[in-house]
Amino acid sequence: MKVLVIGATGLLGTAAATALDARHEVIQASRSGDVQVDLADAESISAMFESVGKVDAVVACTGVVPFKPLAELTAGDFEAGVADKVLGQVNLVLLGTPYVNDGGSFTLTTGVLAREPINTGVAASLANGALESFVMAAAAELPRGIRINAVSPSVLEDATGYHDFFPGFAKISSEDVGRAYVKSVDGIQNGRVFPLG
Amino acid sequence: MKVLVIGATGLLGTAAATALDARHEVIQASRSGDVQVDLADAESISAMFESVGKVDAVVACTGVVPFKPLAELTAGDFEAGVADKVLGQVNLVLLGTPYVNDGGSFTLTTGVLAREPINTGVAASLANGALESFVMAAAAELPRGIRINAVSPSVLEDATGYHDFFPGFAKISSEDVGRAYVKSVDGIQNGRVFPLG
Repeated sequence: MKVLVIGATGLLGTAAATALDARHEVIQASRSGDVQVDLADAESISAMFESVGKVDAVVACTGVVPFKPLAELTAGDFEAGVADKVLGQVNLVLLGTPYVNDGGSFTLTTGVLAREPINTGVAASLANGALESFVMAAAAELPRGIRINAVSPSVLEDATGYHDFFPGFAKISSEDVGRAYVKSVDGIQNGRVFPLG
Repeated sequence: MKVLVIGATGLLGTAAATALDARHEVIQASRSGDVQVDLADAESISAMFESVGKVDAVVACTGVVPFKPLAELTAGDFEAGVADKVLGQVNLVLLGTPYVNDGGSFTLTTGVLAREPINTGVAASLANGALESFVMAAAAELPRGIRINAVSPSVLEDATGYHDFFPGFAKISSEDVGRAYVKSVDGIQNGRVFPLG
């Protein structure tokens, strides 16, 4: 399969690309890589697909959300998180569907904060919850047998700078993360969230 | 208790206000009622709270989301749904918290589409999922014992114009909806979603 991994330079994207590269032809895209894309920019998404052409799977490992105490969060913070993490991945699906072969798939990335809180994580929880319900619903309307799932990990072992914000949460290895993306790309699941931790 | 119901002229708001009015002093607010508010406008939210003063509970039954086939939905449609249904209710919490008495509560309104798809409902699913994770996370950070829950109903019995879009879904009575709002306002639950149907 030809698999396009967006956000391939991050920890999650690297884990996804490494695991998928053992089985497929992986094209890595990011804000600064060989194939460049900014998911906040619709024209950039379309230009990427025009350049890459048809693919069998699209994997998105992107999204930045503000982390602040609830008392300091503004509507603008929530809006920014939605714009970057949610609408970026949603627009990748909307604009990318014509470029995905019959029976292909999208795999988005959400996170444990959709289902568990941490201090300062409310905007991230909202964004992840939005994406998980999107995946559930979009799966029922995508054409030509195209599937969609989400990988929803707890904090990564390698993301040591974040560990203190996730007290007692499971720390997920790159191998486990990689396996989840493989499961979505190579499996038959559809409309599913794969929780890790 | 003094209970502020926003969106009190809609079907859900009427059901909530009717059930709560039997037990509490209910103040009804809407875009056109005695107490006027537009949740899309932060100044309007603040003006409402300045006029109403301290309350024991805030109930929001608001939000409009575009319904279109996935193939016709644009990023702008998702953005519009988030702005109206999600950020409106979120900003009500952010700006309203100082006006809620110790041990008071917020009750938001989401919907069955957070957990089940219907044709043309993807933007609504995303918005409802966002709010449900927000409620879960905000509950852990609200100050002074203030609680927050969400009522998440299937289509209402009285919403006959929508029944064809929800084939086989449970049709929820106004009484059942009203009870769910009472459970949130008068109970001790926190960070919970109350699914109906």
